[in-house]
Amino acid sequence: MPPIVAIGPEPEPQIERAVAEGGGEVGPLEHAEALVWLDYRVDSFPDALPDAVRWVQLPSAGVERWLEAGRLEGDRAFTTAVGAYSQPVAEHVVALLLAGVRALPACVRAASWGEPDVGELAGSTVVIVGAGSIGRALIALLAPFDCEIVAVTRRGRPVDGAARTLPADRVAEVWRAGHVVLAAPATAATRHLVDRAALAAMRSDAWLVNVARGALVDTDALVEALAAGEIAGAALDVTDPEPLPDGHALWSEPRALITPHVANPASTELDHLARHVRENVRRYVNGEPLLAQVDTEAGY
Amino acid sequence: MPPIVAIGPEPEPQIERAVAEGGGEVGPLEHAEALVWLDYRVDSFPDALPDAVRWVQLPSAGVERWLEAGRLEGDRAFTTAVGAYSQPVAEHVVALLLAGVRALPACVRAASWGEPDVGELAGSTVVIVGAGSIGRALIALLAPFDCEIVAVTRRGRPVDGAARTLPADRVAEVWRAGHVVLAAPATAATRHLVDRAALAAMRSDAWLVNVARGALVDTDALVEALAAGEIAGAALDVTDPEPLPDGHALWSEPRALITPHVANPASTELDHLARHVRENVRRYVNGEPLLAQVDTEAGY
Repeated sequence: MPPIVAIGPEPEPQIERAVAEGGGEVGPLEHAEALVWLDYRVDSFPDALPDAVRWVQLPSAGVERWLEAGRLEGDRAFTTAVGAYSQPVAEHVVALLLAGVRALPACVRAASWGEPDVGELAGSTVVIVGAGSIGRALIALLAPFDCEIVAVTRRGRPVDGAARTLPADRVAEVWRAGHVVLAAPATAATRHLVDRAALAAMRSDAWLVNVARGALVDTDALVEALAAGEIAGAALDVTDPEPLPDGHALWSEPRALITPHVANPASTELDHLARHVRENVRRYVNGEPLLAQVDTEAGY
Repeated sequence: MPPIVAIGPEPEPQIERAVAEGGGEVGPLEHAEALVWLDYRVDSFPDALPDAVRWVQLPSAGVERWLEAGRLEGDRAFTTAVGAYSQPVAEHVVALLLAGVRALPACVRAASWGEPDVGELAGSTVVIVGAGSIGRALIALLAPFDCEIVAVTRRGRPVDGAARTLPADRVAEVWRAGHVVLAAPATAATRHLVDRAALAAMRSDAWLVNVARGALVDTDALVEALAAGEIAGAALDVTDPEPLPDGHALWSEPRALITPHVANPASTELDHLARHVRENVRRYVNGEPLLAQVDTEAGY
């Protein structure tokens, strides 16, 4: 008998197909042992779930707000979408890095033939803070670009494709190495990881790319560093505050490139989530470890 | 005895080192059997060279103006910089493709949080017209991006890494396949290769990228196609006319992304040329075939 998997809050044909392809049977929540939840808003989530629900698949990669709201409790597994969107997010990072190095923002703004300050990504060092699934996908995409990769992970365990890996408590040593990509979860430990000191340590030709969460960067310190030309630029897909309010200094800062949380594009999001759901249903059916299970103690 | 290699019009320490490292000896033109010419301007080139000069290395990849001016004559070898700048130019193509697909021009122009129309490069088809050294370098860079590569070459001989290769006389069949990258030499046969019909055949979500020569595109037809939204956009590192004059329609076209002939960035150009010169001097010294020898009949 295939396990009954509920889908909420609304039916979604592509996810229904994924559940069936993974070996589950779509059914109502009151008969289900698993739930795939498709609404990003914490408030949308049911206050109480039937005890029979052993596993909940959430739609987003970052679940800090769900944890804060105490929604990920009870004796069951919660899985996030970590990994599901790694490929598109990593692609966005390469787009942002190359746009920065190639001076594309200045070119977009130009209304006459000029001499923008164009460099190459080749030959540079890219520091990737957080070598989870996004970091690993990014390393794979950068492989042919002749960059040196420095990874920073919690414990500093070597990461494939990285020339060096440092533990998080030594991150201060790598700010000066080159471009910096933030792909770490938002936790108390990573809040304002990129602060005034980090920005001051960075190279003047380096770009900061953030596709993680806005709070990893001290926005006020960044605004000052950009205005002073301490770094070449910042490409931010996430901001703090987010959405970035109209009139914020970053909107008019030529060294800032803001993309409105689109690293995982809406146009392809469901495709990626469906692939992830299919794989997790298959694992659930086969009693294998689920992808991206929440560690409620670590906070992600 | 190492061959005497002259460098002109001015001495250049980095090129002098490259000549020495390749096994040559830098000396005056009147005693030289080879000349490395560093000035891009055709008019700068000596009217007549000593008969003893058996080989001339030119600084640019495209030499159509040198050929038109009849400067590449006499019983000697002329080599271009084809291949020397392939890596940085290919990197620029990836920057432009990703910028287009990821809607970065719209993001740069935005002054408030919005919903730009962002897509992915993954899953798309990239048509590369001209699979010379730039095209091959581009295929290598795109390898991890999960794109299908379609190559168009003069004779259609299969290209490594391309799913299909078509001969130039069947190029009309591939316009509809996806994004189009122009990396073919400017010849009589490629003039206005991308004309009204080609643009009309292209997909509405496709980007046209030109890093070859402006004349490969019918600019007037492109302006119309962009204004009508027939294609998603055009990222042009080369234009016709070039430089693109102030007030030209492309400067104000939101679907156009113009970079002012910087795919091969000035900041790293001499490094790449020096590497090329060193290898060609080594080949000359050893009697091996030179890289990028001009075929004066084919016109490149």
